[in-house]
Order: sequence, then structure tokens, then C-alpha cells
Amino acid sequence: MTKKFLLNESEIPARWYNIVAEMPNKPLPMLHPGTREALKPEDLYPIFAEEIARQELNQTDVWIDIPEEVRDKYRIYRPSPLVRACGLEKALDTPAHIYFKNESVSPVGSHKLNSALAQAYYCKKEGLTNITTETGAGQWGTALSFAAKVFGLELAVYMVKVSYEQKPYRRSLMQTWGAQVTASPSMSTKAGRKILTENPTYQGSLGTAISEAIELAMQTPNCKYTLGSVLNHVSLHQTVIGLEAEKQMEIAGEYPDIVIGCFGGGSNFSGIAYPFMRHSFKGGKATRYIAAEPASCPKLTRGVFQYDFGDEAGYTPLLPMFTLGHNFAPAHIHAGGLRYHGAGTIVSQLLKDKLIEATDIQQLDSFEAGVLFARTEGIIPAPESAHAIAAAINEALKAKEEGRRKTILFNLSGHGLVDMSAYDQYLSGDLSNYSLTDEEIAGNIGSLETII
Amino acid sequence: MTKKFLLNESEIPARWYNIVAEMPNKPLPMLHPGTREALKPEDLYPIFAEEIARQELNQTDVWIDIPEEVRDKYRIYRPSPLVRACGLEKALDTPAHIYFKNESVSPVGSHKLNSALAQAYYCKKEGLTNITTETGAGQWGTALSFAAKVFGLELAVYMVKVSYEQKPYRRSLMQTWGAQVTASPSMSTKAGRKILTENPTYQGSLGTAISEAIELAMQTPNCKYTLGSVLNHVSLHQTVIGLEAEKQMEIAGEYPDIVIGCFGGGSNFSGIAYPFMRHSFKGGKATRYIAAEPASCPKLTRGVFQYDFGDEAGYTPLLPMFTLGHNFAPAHIHAGGLRYHGAGTIVSQLLKDKLIEATDIQQLDSFEAGVLFARTEGIIPAPESAHAIAAAINEALKAKEEGRRKTILFNLSGHGLVDMSAYDQYLSGDLSNYSLTDEEIAGNIGSLETII
Repeated sequence: MTKKFLLNESEIPARWYNIVAEMPNKPLPMLHPGTREALKPEDLYPIFAEEIARQELNQTDVWIDIPEEVRDKYRIYRPSPLVRACGLEKALDTPAHIYFKNESVSPVGSHKLNSALAQAYYCKKEGLTNITTETGAGQWGTALSFAAKVFGLELAVYMVKVSYEQKPYRRSLMQTWGAQVTASPSMSTKAGRKILTENPTYQGSLGTAISEAIELAMQTPNCKYTLGSVLNHVSLHQTVIGLEAEKQMEIAGEYPDIVIGCFGGGSNFSGIAYPFMRHSFKGGKATRYIAAEPASCPKLTRGVFQYDFGDEAGYTPLLPMFTLGHNFAPAHIHAGGLRYHGAGTIVSQLLKDKLIEATDIQQLDSFEAGVLFARTEGIIPAPESAHAIAAAINEALKAKEEGRRKTILFNLSGHGLVDMSAYDQYLSGDLSNYSLTDEEIAGNIGSLETII
Repeated sequence: MTKKFLLNESEIPARWYNIVAEMPNKPLPMLHPGTREALKPEDLYPIFAEEIARQELNQTDVWIDIPEEVRDKYRIYRPSPLVRACGLEKALDTPAHIYFKNESVSPVGSHKLNSALAQAYYCKKEGLTNITTETGAGQWGTALSFAAKVFGLELAVYMVKVSYEQKPYRRSLMQTWGAQVTASPSMSTKAGRKILTENPTYQGSLGTAISEAIELAMQTPNCKYTLGSVLNHVSLHQTVIGLEAEKQMEIAGEYPDIVIGCFGGGSNFSGIAYPFMRHSFKGGKATRYIAAEPASCPKLTRGVFQYDFGDEAGYTPLLPMFTLGHNFAPAHIHAGGLRYHGAGTIVSQLLKDKLIEATDIQQLDSFEAGVLFARTEGIIPAPESAHAIAAAINEALKAKEEGRRKTILFNLSGHGLVDMSAYDQYLSGDLSNYSLTDEEIAGNIGSLETII
């Protein structure tokens, strides 16, 4: 029997949950890249809208009001459904109950709109006319394209070249919503030109695209930069996911033993996990929180905890993070949104404190999980989200082995309707796994400056 | 302010509305292609599941119960939202209130799942193991692929060649859900071979693909054919759209002056319009019902009312319909779902009786409307649905000119996320309009046998 759990529009959260204010150990400070001193909001004003900079460094307010203008736009697609994956459970013949939060219902097809609307709103409120950003698979770029249009801003997007080529539909989406899209690395920035000169066939990375987008923002009047993951304010905005899911699990009469999100920079994992984590602090609920990352980009499972830049060129502050090194060039897997060298500072601290876990998923396993999900639940998942599904399936099969009735909740961060070329390749047997040797990882990490 | 009107799952309709039972003039009978006698359900049993054949010819029962198994699967995505398009209204600066029923929220991206689930269920219940169908743009094929998987049937799809090439993602979708997909015309059937031999570069049509799918079904044991539009039982299943919309308009506190659907074979237009029409019979509500068809395939606005075949090869019964002739080869517009030579018998009778209207929309106007809708409401519409949007915009602008506060309701039959190559071409200025001369139309219709 199909089971979905809905909320009324009045139950769209009115406040975001700021986990930093309640963490047992707060993250180490971000450092100014020049002075190496702890970052102050003012240091971020040249790059980010001021309200966003303040949210980024807010360590005291547990709850932050969602502006009414943003909440109104959330009503286009929120509250999103919580669904019990009865078809998947049956196919796995597991005693586990599997739930997923369906963020794919947003008009842009993913959770990214939750932060895009907030960021575009704050930029507009500050009087900006232009914004820039980067995008990997294109989920963030599409979300911001629509959000920019909603609030009347012009947007320039640097799209990682491998995705620009693999996912032409996502580029078209951004253009249909009115954004300017450039493949990165490009000749339009110093950062891009440098990389193209050194390595003309480089297929790009999120780190490089971020460098280009920041550079353009710094050189454009009345323009600032926005980021779709990694940073604290992005995780903050995404907590609407978990806050809704919490109410919906209550309606379902269950509480999750395990909460799972796929992991690139952390935005959707944070969004589903943090609101539940507040019940786990100080010896509360014994829920496990699992970040599912690709085996080809294993910063949480095999990276090092160290200060590193958020971008390839070193324009960003130094962040205390689990990282593979900011010049790590990930394999060209189809889950482009997960091809990022580092994890956000909050997630990194939580992992260091063993409050969350991480698992790595091979590309073929993610697509196998994605196809099974499509055939049992109807929704074609984004290749990124398929990592969360694969992790959920692993846990459901463990529960079956152990004969235990676990309750598993994962975040379906987006659909894969614009990623069908990847499914095509998978079904034709043309995809491979990518693994890194210990030497490759050590070699790359070895180039990092030791600050901690 | 964003306004969406939701229903609870308990409000998913329990019965479909069978308009034939209440029409002032019933459609003329369908004729057996051999005997030319009025069709009996038994005549359809070799092609269609028996329950479907009975529904097709049921002229007496006003309401038909929806099987609980189908209703349960409807819960995956139903009830779909009704949305007031406040952003679009504002952009048009119109006094009209514009509402749309958002059928794009189904996991397959369109309304087609409403009938696919029903048809797959009846086929399974009859003990069939295999089914066949055709698909134009791929909306019906994707829907049936998932529905077949849900009920455990093997599905073979003939996909119109021009769409097979223009819309590779839709092919991938069907394959991901587990269907076999063949471009039509193909060498796998007599009907396909004949056309390919006469015209090796023919890009296919729905009429040809139907011939191939019927032929395969007739030659495969334990296999029947299914159709996604045109026929009465398909319209019947689609009435869940209008029945929900009626309740939602009530919540919104309005009643539509105008109801609009795009028009290919009639499935989504019927679905939104028929439940409202029952209040218009016998001097009831004075609502206008507008079918928006492409100017390149204008059977309602420029076709003739005559008996004609539903397919190119002449395998189907003779249907009394507005038609351009069953061998009409429509231009390769991107709204592949609207490239069909004829209209269903019910719609044709309603048009003949002036109970509904038709309007034709040029391809470029449909994309202009689609882009405006995407930028104001967030959803990228399917090229088919963009015809309904264009018609709604025309009516909203008329209302503005007349200074009248009209209430307009249209059906957003699906999203266009898998049609982005079409938007790409539109935004690059690479698309054209297609119009037919009176001579072209007369020439094609002239070849029809005169039965009425």
C-alpha cells in the first residue's frame, strides 16, 4: 500500500535550525586567507551579501526566522512529501521500514531551491543587481536561476565543464530561466585562464568553478557571489527538510534509527540530519547519521582533517575540514554534485566528534540502487541521490540479516530526469567504478599546508 | 503571493466520470472495419483487455468505480495541486484569475499515468503477461513503462521516430523502467516495413506507431494493445483531473469561466473539461471549453467530420471524428504528443454540437508562452502543455482588453524537463512555425471514404 505523509502549507517551518549554536564542540574558526586570523562577518562582506555573512558566522542563535518573502516562495513546492518506500521494502524483503523525504518535487527538481530562494532574497534586499555562482551537475545552478528570476536579479553561472558537456539539458534549464551559463574552466577569468594554460584539456571541478565565480563577482559592480553547498548558511537554509520530516515521521508514528543523505559539500545531508541531531545531543536519541559519498571522492572516509581552501585557486577563507586537498581532481562520475574535495566545517567537526558516520558508494552500486528505486517507487533519482538510496539499501539489507526492524530515513535530494544520459550509459554497461589508491590520496593531501 | 490548493489523499476520486452517459447527442457508433457494422465490445476483445473494451462502449453508467488497486497507486502522486498562477497574472497585468491543475507532479512527469495505471491493472487482472503500445513524444510510453512495471507486465513500445531521435531521454526513461523501445516505422512489423519501403526516410507518426503496436499485440501470445489517448476509456480515466480540480476550485472560492487543455488525441483536455461539462449540460453553467491544438495539425479547427481510421494502416475500427485523414503526415513540431491526425469520438461530437471550442496555436507562440510560464511560475512546461498556456494567455489578454475579471483554468498536462533540446532550439532562434495551405488539407482529406 502506497503511503505518503503530507503537511499543510501552514506547517512550512517558520525558522531555520542553526546547529552550530547547540554543537558540543563548535567548529574551529575559519581563517582569513591573508592574515590567518579568525574570520569576522565583515571579512566576508566583499564576497557575500551581508545578512548571509552574518548567518555564516552566527554561533549563538539556535533558531533563525525565515523571511516571509522566502517562506511565500517555499509554498510553490513545500512542504515536500515524506514517503514510505513500501515498493522498495518489498523488493528487498527487509523488515526495515524505509522512508524518504521527496525533495525532487521542487520545480527545479532538487532541494537546492531551499537555499537559492533565501540567498537570492538577501542579495536583492541588499540592493544588488547581479549575482554569480558555480554549479557542478547543475542542480544548484538551475535552482539559483529560477530564484534569481523570482527576485529580479541577473545571474552568471560557471558550470563545471564535464557536466556542461554531459548534462546539456541542465544548461538549457538555466538559460530558459534566464541565466548566463559559461563552461568552467573558461578564458573569462584569471583563475580559469591559468588552469586552461597549464592543462588545456582539464574538465573542470567545483573548486575551479568557485574560483571563477568569485573572481567575476569581485570585478562586477553591484554584484556578489553565492554558493550552493559546504558553507554554514547553506546548511542552515536546508534544515527546512529535516524540520518537516520530523513532523511527518511523527504522523507516520515512527522515529528514525538511521538518517541518510548523499554527500558532496553537505547541503542535503545537513538539511535532513541536523534537525534530528538536536535530539541526539547530550545523550538524547541514539539515531545514526550516515553521509553517503562517492568512492571516487572520499573526503569523509579517506580524507584528512586540516585547514584548506574551499576553491581551487585559493580565493576563499581557510576552512577546517575533511579534505582531499583543494587541487584534487575527482574522476568524471555522473554524480557531478558530489565531485567536491572538501566537507563543510560543521559536518567535519561532527565527524571528528564521531556524532555522524560516513560511507563510500561505488558508481555502479549507486546506479543499481537508482534503477531499483525507479522501478519500485516510480521516481528516477538523481545520480547524487542514488548514493543515499544505495546506503539505505545497505542498511536495510543489514537489518534483514540481523532480523531487526530498523527505521531508515533518507533524503531524496532530487530527481534524475535531466540525467538520463547517465542511466543510458549504465544500462548499456558503459559506466565504471572509480577508486583511488592510498598513494594517490596521500600524494594529494601531502601538498596541504599543516595549520592544525 | 503564492497560492496552491491541495486535497487530502482521501479526496482522490473513487469513481471516474463517464460523460457519454450524459451527452445530449451521443457519438455515432464506431464501425467494424470489415463489416462496417456498429462495434460491440466483443469486437474489441482481440485487441484490448475485455474490461477496457466494455468501458470503451459503455454509454449508460455515469460513474465507474476506480479499482482500489489503481486508486492506491494514484496515491503515489495524487491528488495533484491546483495552483493560482499569480506570477503569470502579474506578468500579463490581467484582471483575469488564472489557475492551473499541475499534472506534472506525477513521477513520469505527466497526466498519462492516470490511464496507464488503470490499463495496466486491467490487463494484469485478465491474466496477460505482455502489452504493447505506441508513443509520440514519449509521455504515454514513459507512463505505461512505469505502470507495467508496477503491475508486473512486460511492455513493448513503438516510439515515433522523430521523437525517438529528438527526445532520447524519454527513450532512456522507458528503458530505465524496464520497457523495450523500438523506433517507428520499424522493420519488425508488416505495417512498418510497408511504410519504410515506400518512404525510407519517413520520420513516423502516431498513426503508424499504433499500427505497429497493434500488429505486434495480435501476433504475441497473452498480449494485448493499449492506447494513451483518443479513445473513450482513456478520457474516462483522465477525469480524475477535473474531478479533483472541481473540488479545489471550490476551496479557492471560484468557478471557471473558461477551461483549457492542449489537444492531441484528447486525453488531457477531456480529463480537465468533462467533469466541469456535466454542469453545463441542459442549460447549466455557461463555461467555455477550449481545446488548444497546434497550427501544424489542425484537425479540430480545419479538419472534416467523417469516419476515419485511428491508425495509418487501417487496423482500428472506423471512428466518427474530426480528422485530417489517417495518412496525414504532420510537421515535426516539438509537441510530439499533439501530432495526431484525428480527435476522439466524444470530443468530435461535442465540437460538432458546439459545446466546446477549438483554437490553433503556432509553435513559436507556444514556446514563448512556455518560457514566460517557466520564468513566472517556476515549472518548465512540456511543449504540448505550452499550447494550453498560450491559449490561456490569449484569453487573459482578451479579458484585460475587455476589462473583465474572467476565471481561467488550464491543465498543465506535464513538465518539459525531458524536452530541453526543444527549448534550446527555441532560445537559439532555430525553431519555426508550420502552417498548412487549404490545398494541402483538402488534398489529404479528399482521399477519405465518405461514410456519413
